[in-house]
Amino acid sequence: MIIFQPSGRRGRVPRGVSIVEASRQLGVDIASPCGAKQVCGKCKIRIEQGNFQKYGIVSKMNHAGPWQSGEEEHITADEREAGFRLACAATVEDDLLIFVPEASQVGKQVVSKTARDIDIVINPAVKQYSVELTPPTLENPAGDFDRLCAALEQQHGLDDVRIDAAVLRVLQNTLERANWKVTVAIWMDRNVIHVTPGQGSNLFGLAIDVGTTTVAVYLCDLTSGQVLDTLSMMNPQVKYGEDVVSRISFHMENPDGLDRMSTDLVAGLNRLVAKIPKREYVLRSPAASGDLGPEQTVRIQTDDIVDVCIVGNTAMHHILLQLDPEPLGRIPFAPAIQHSLTIKARDMGLHVNPAACVFMLPIEAGFVGGDNVGVILAEEPHIKDQIQLIIDIGTNGELVLGNQKKLVCSSCATGPALEGAQIEFGMRAAPGAIERLIIDPDTLDVDYKVVGRDAWRSYSSPEEMLTKGICGSGILDAVAQLFIAGVVDPSGAFNLERLSPRLRINSETDMKEFVLAWSEDTSIDKDIVITQKDIRQIQLAKAAIYTGCKLMMRKLKIDRVDRVKVAGAFGSHIDCKLALAIGMFPDCAIDNIVSVGNAAGDGCRAALLNRDKRVEADRVAREVEYMELTLEEDFQQQLMDAIYFPHRRDDFKNLVGVVPEHLLQSAKNCL
Amino acid sequence: MIIFQPSGRRGRVPRGVSIVEASRQLGVDIASPCGAKQVCGKCKIRIEQGNFQKYGIVSKMNHAGPWQSGEEEHITADEREAGFRLACAATVEDDLLIFVPEASQVGKQVVSKTARDIDIVINPAVKQYSVELTPPTLENPAGDFDRLCAALEQQHGLDDVRIDAAVLRVLQNTLERANWKVTVAIWMDRNVIHVTPGQGSNLFGLAIDVGTTTVAVYLCDLTSGQVLDTLSMMNPQVKYGEDVVSRISFHMENPDGLDRMSTDLVAGLNRLVAKIPKREYVLRSPAASGDLGPEQTVRIQTDDIVDVCIVGNTAMHHILLQLDPEPLGRIPFAPAIQHSLTIKARDMGLHVNPAACVFMLPIEAGFVGGDNVGVILAEEPHIKDQIQLIIDIGTNGELVLGNQKKLVCSSCATGPALEGAQIEFGMRAAPGAIERLIIDPDTLDVDYKVVGRDAWRSYSSPEEMLTKGICGSGILDAVAQLFIAGVVDPSGAFNLERLSPRLRINSETDMKEFVLAWSEDTSIDKDIVITQKDIRQIQLAKAAIYTGCKLMMRKLKIDRVDRVKVAGAFGSHIDCKLALAIGMFPDCAIDNIVSVGNAAGDGCRAALLNRDKRVEADRVAREVEYMELTLEEDFQQQLMDAIYFPHRRDDFKNLVGVVPEHLLQSAKNCL
Repeated sequence: MIIFQPSGRRGRVPRGVSIVEASRQLGVDIASPCGAKQVCGKCKIRIEQGNFQKYGIVSKMNHAGPWQSGEEEHITADEREAGFRLACAATVEDDLLIFVPEASQVGKQVVSKTARDIDIVINPAVKQYSVELTPPTLENPAGDFDRLCAALEQQHGLDDVRIDAAVLRVLQNTLERANWKVTVAIWMDRNVIHVTPGQGSNLFGLAIDVGTTTVAVYLCDLTSGQVLDTLSMMNPQVKYGEDVVSRISFHMENPDGLDRMSTDLVAGLNRLVAKIPKREYVLRSPAASGDLGPEQTVRIQTDDIVDVCIVGNTAMHHILLQLDPEPLGRIPFAPAIQHSLTIKARDMGLHVNPAACVFMLPIEAGFVGGDNVGVILAEEPHIKDQIQLIIDIGTNGELVLGNQKKLVCSSCATGPALEGAQIEFGMRAAPGAIERLIIDPDTLDVDYKVVGRDAWRSYSSPEEMLTKGICGSGILDAVAQLFIAGVVDPSGAFNLERLSPRLRINSETDMKEFVLAWSEDTSIDKDIVITQKDIRQIQLAKAAIYTGCKLMMRKLKIDRVDRVKVAGAFGSHIDCKLALAIGMFPDCAIDNIVSVGNAAGDGCRAALLNRDKRVEADRVAREVEYMELTLEEDFQQQLMDAIYFPHRRDDFKNLVGVVPEHLLQSAKNCL
Repeated sequence: MIIFQPSGRRGRVPRGVSIVEASRQLGVDIASPCGAKQVCGKCKIRIEQGNFQKYGIVSKMNHAGPWQSGEEEHITADEREAGFRLACAATVEDDLLIFVPEASQVGKQVVSKTARDIDIVINPAVKQYSVELTPPTLENPAGDFDRLCAALEQQHGLDDVRIDAAVLRVLQNTLERANWKVTVAIWMDRNVIHVTPGQGSNLFGLAIDVGTTTVAVYLCDLTSGQVLDTLSMMNPQVKYGEDVVSRISFHMENPDGLDRMSTDLVAGLNRLVAKIPKREYVLRSPAASGDLGPEQTVRIQTDDIVDVCIVGNTAMHHILLQLDPEPLGRIPFAPAIQHSLTIKARDMGLHVNPAACVFMLPIEAGFVGGDNVGVILAEEPHIKDQIQLIIDIGTNGELVLGNQKKLVCSSCATGPALEGAQIEFGMRAAPGAIERLIIDPDTLDVDYKVVGRDAWRSYSSPEEMLTKGICGSGILDAVAQLFIAGVVDPSGAFNLERLSPRLRINSETDMKEFVLAWSEDTSIDKDIVITQKDIRQIQLAKAAIYTGCKLMMRKLKIDRVDRVKVAGAFGSHIDCKLALAIGMFPDCAIDNIVSVGNAAGDGCRAALLNRDKRVEADRVAREVEYMELTLEEDFQQQLMDAIYFPHRRDDFKNLVGVVPEHLLQSAKNCL
C-alpha cells in the first residue's frame, strides 16, 4: 500500500516502480519537468517513517529503495536525514507513506505578490517539459519533431502534440546544438510554441487590462506566479473619444476608424512590451519548503513571453479585435461574440513570442465585458454563500450581485463626473489635482491633499501645494463632506443659512458655489469652486449606481447585501464610507464595504496563471444574467428617487473634518 | 423497425421523428446542409413499398407521414410517384424500408473526372452548414457567434466549434444582412473559416504538387470532387539550381537563400492562384440519380478557396516551410518533421482564403517525400494483396515496393539524363524536342515526332518538323531502339559492324555517335546525334533504378513483382515496354507494366477531398520502411552489374521500327 499526503490518495502499484510513476498511477501529480531523469531536483518528496496504524501500514526509509548517486546534488545532508528523496530516484519496495511538499506539487497554491493577495493555483496554459531525444539514425529516419513527440510521450505521457511551423524552424537548429536535450513550452499540452536548449529557463506571460481610459499590463512569471512588473499607459484611443460611445461614433463616422483605433492600441501595447527587455527582474522560485527560494536576476526577451490574457469592456474587446462595435450602441446591444477567443499573437500584431496564443476573456453582454468576468474570477461571488454586490467604477459602471445560487450583472451610465470630467474645475487624477479633501463642519475650513504628495495642505507651505483642479475622488469627498456638514441639504441644494465666505453666489453665472481653494493657493490664479451643477452631476452618477443596485436586488428578491466591494481605480481612491453616506450603495454595515482594487486585472492574471480559470470564465460569462436596467418599467422613477441624499446623515458625523486614519499615517510619514 | 439501404443499417426510433433524425440515430448520414428545413432539397430519399419478408417488415408510403408543402419544390411528380420524399419532411410512423440515393449520402463515392479516374470518397476537411439563427434580443444577449454555435449544435449536432477571429468580422456583418440565415464553412467540424449569406455556394480547394522542376495546382470543387482547372508552372527555384542538391547548396552559401527560394515559390503559386478569378468554370453537381446534374457557370473568388493540400519531395517541403534543408544533405539525412503539418494560409503567405488551413502531407524520409505518400494514397499498394513496384521518376527517382503486409521505399539517384540534361543534344520537353523516335532495324532510318505536333516526320514536310534537340523520352526511345536493332551491344557500345552513314566517329571528339536528325531537318544547322557518352548516361540512370528495385526485392525476399507502375510526367511519356527492354525495371509481364501519370498529384487530391486520407497518409508515412540503398554493402557491385543491357533483346524485336499503336492513331488523326 502506498499513500500520498497531503492529498490522501492511496493504492497499490507494482513493486519497483519509481515514486513519480506511482504518483501518476494514483493520480497525484508530482512535478517532474526533467522527465524523471534525476536532473532537475524538482520532485523532492519526504518518506514518513513510522507505524501508521490508522492506515494499517508501516513505512520505512528503506521501503523506498537504495539511495541513488543522482540525488546527492539536489538533497542536502539535513534533508536526507529528514527523509527527503527524489521521487524519480526512489522506488516503491514496500508500504510507504509519502509527503509531497507544496513545491513539488503540480498545481501548487502560490500567493502572488502584488498589491492584492489573491490565491491563484499555478496551472498555466503554457507549461515546459524537458526531454532528451534519441539522435537520428539511418535506421530510424523519423524527423526531429517526430522524435520529440516520441520523447514527450515516453518521458511525460503527452500524446498528439503538434507544433507551430515557425517553432519547427527553431527546434531543428536547437536540437543538434543542444545535443538532443531541450526544453519545450507547450500550449495546453497540445502545441509546441517555444524551444530552449538544455533545461530551459523561466517563461513569462502578460495579463492585460484594457480600460477605456487606462491600460495596465502585468508581467508574470508563469512558474511562480510572481508579478514582476506592472506597466501602464493611457489608452491611445482616448484621442478619438473619451468614452465608449464616442469611440463607437468615431468608427461609424470614419471608414478607417476601427482600424486606426485597433492599430493604435496594439502599437501602444508594443511600446510597453518593448520596455521589458531593457529592465532587470528579480525572480524568486518556490523552494521545496514552500517558502520562496533564492533570488535570481534575469533579463527577459520578448520571445520568452509565451502567453497573454486580455480583459476589457465589450467595446474595447471589439475594437481591439476589429469587430464592428456599432451594434453595441443600439438595441439589442448584441456583441459579435460572448465566448472567449484565442488568437495567435502574430495575428494580433503583438510583439511577444509570435507563436504565443492571446486569450481574450469572454464577455457577459453588450455593456458588461471581460473586465467584469475578471472581477468575478477574482472575487468569486459565484462560488460563495454570502451575497456580494461588486461595483466596478471606471468610465462605465459595471455591477454584479448575487452568490453561488444566482448572479445578475448590469451596466449603469455613471457619466464622466466621477472621473472629474464635466465638472467646473474637474480634471484627471494628475499632479496638482485635489484628490482627498475634508471640510471642518463648524468653520467650513477646507484641508486637502493633491496627487503626487502625501502631506496635507495644513502641514505644507502653500507653494508645495499649488493646485489646479479636482479629480473624481476629491469631488466625491467634497460633496459628501458638504452634505454631512449640512452645507448641502438632502435635495442637493446649497443651504445658504450656513454663512461662510466660501459659500457664495457667483455674480456672473448667478449660481451657488463653494470655494475649495482660494486663488492664491492655486496655480491657475482662480478660486477653485464646486458648483451647484457639479453637485447635480455627482447626484446623477450616484443615483445611477444606487438604482442599478436596487433593481438588481429586486430581481433577486433580496433587501440587503452581505458585502459591498468597490473595484477599479476609482474604488481604490475614494472613501467608501463617504460614498455610502451620500447613498451611492444600498445600505450595508460600514465595515462590510471594501475596496478591492483592480479586480478585473486580478481576474485576468488568474486566467493567465491557471488554465482552469479560462473554462470557469466561459461558464461564468454564460451563466451570469444580464439585466438591461433602462428597460425596467419604473427605472426613471427609481432614478429620480435616488437623486436625493439619504436622511440619516448623523450616522456619518464622525467622518467629517477628519483626515482618515490611513491617510493621516502616510501624511505624518511625509513630514 | 426502420431499415436504410444500401447501407443496411436498421433499428427502432421513436414514432414521429423525421427520417433525417432517424438516420442520425442509426448512424446513417443523410446530407442535410440546410439543417432539415425543407429548403435545400439535398436529402431526397426513396420509400420502398412492399412486403419485405426477409426483413420481416411491410413498408408503405403512408408509413412516412403526410406529404409536406415544402417538398413540392424539390420533388417532381414523377419522383413522387416513384416514392421519393425529403428525409427532413417525412417522418417515421411505422415500419419503413428507405433507400438513400448516392447524391443524398454524406461521403458519397464520386469518380473525379480528370485524366486519371481514381475513386475518391468525398469527405472534405472543410464542410458547409446552413443555419438559421435566432435574432438577438434584450432577453438573450448572447453574441452572434454564440447564437451560431447554438444553431450548429441544434440543427447539425456540432459542438465545441471555434471561429477564426478574421472570420468573426465577416460573420457579424453578414448575419444581419442575411436575415440571420447563413452558411458557414467549418474546418474539421471545429473551426469556422468562411461565412456566406443564405444557402451559400460551392467552395473550392487546391491540391498542389511541388516538384523540383515543375509545380502543378489542381483546382477542385469540394462538393463534387470535380477538377475544374489544372495550372502549372516551372518551379521558380530552378534559377537557384536544377536539382535538390544544388538548391540545398544555394541555401548553405547564401544567408538569405532559404528565404528567397521559399518566397519565390509562394509568389509563383500566388501568380497561378490569381488566374482563377479571371476564368469561368462549369460546375456539375451530382443529382439524386447519381449522374451528374445540370451545368452551372461560375466565377471563383480566392476567398472561396478554403482548403489546400501540398505534396512535394522532402527538400521542396522543407524549403517551402523555410525549414533548414541542410541536414537532408548529409548522413543520417534527418528531416525536421515527418508528420503532416497544418499551417494557416495567411502564415504561408498564400493568397487564398486567409483563414484556410494548408495541409502539408507527411514525408517518409530525407529523400522520400510527401509526393511519394501521395503516390501511395493514389495507388494504394498498402491495402492490396498483389505486390506492386511503383517507380516515380522526376528529377529524383522514388521507389515503393510491397503490399499490405509490408512496404519499403527508397530513393535512387537517376541523375538528370532522363530529363534530357547532360545529354549532348538534350533539352527539356519543349516545342521542337524529339519526344518519340523509331529506328528501322534494317535501314537504320529514323522517324520521330516533336513536342507540340502529333504527326510524325515521315508524314510531314520538313519545315513543319524542324527540331533542335531531344528530350528524355526521345533519348530512351533512341537507346532502346538502337539496342534492339543491334546497333548498340549489351555492354552499351556502338557496334560499328552495322554500316550506315548515321553511325560514325566524330572527327573532333573521336567518339562514336549516331545521327538522329540531319542538319537540314533541324533549326540549329547541326546534325542531332546521340553519342556513346549519352548512352552511358542512360545506362547509369536505368542501372540506378534497376538496382534500387532489386535491393528492395531482396529486402522483401521476393523474386518477382505482380505489377510495375511508372508514375510522374516522365512515366507518362516513355514507352514502358522499351524501358523494360533496356532493363530499367525487374522482369515483369509486359502487360503488367503501366504508366499511372501524376500519381503524387492524384494522392494529394485524395487528401484534399477526403479528410480520412490525411490520417491514412500519416499512418502510411510512418509504416513504410525506408531503405538507404547506398548503405547496402554490395550496392556498388549491383549497380555495375546493372549497367549492361539484358541479353534477351529478341523478345522485343517487334517493338523496333514501328510507331506504337496509340501514337499511330493520333498521328493519323492529325493528317
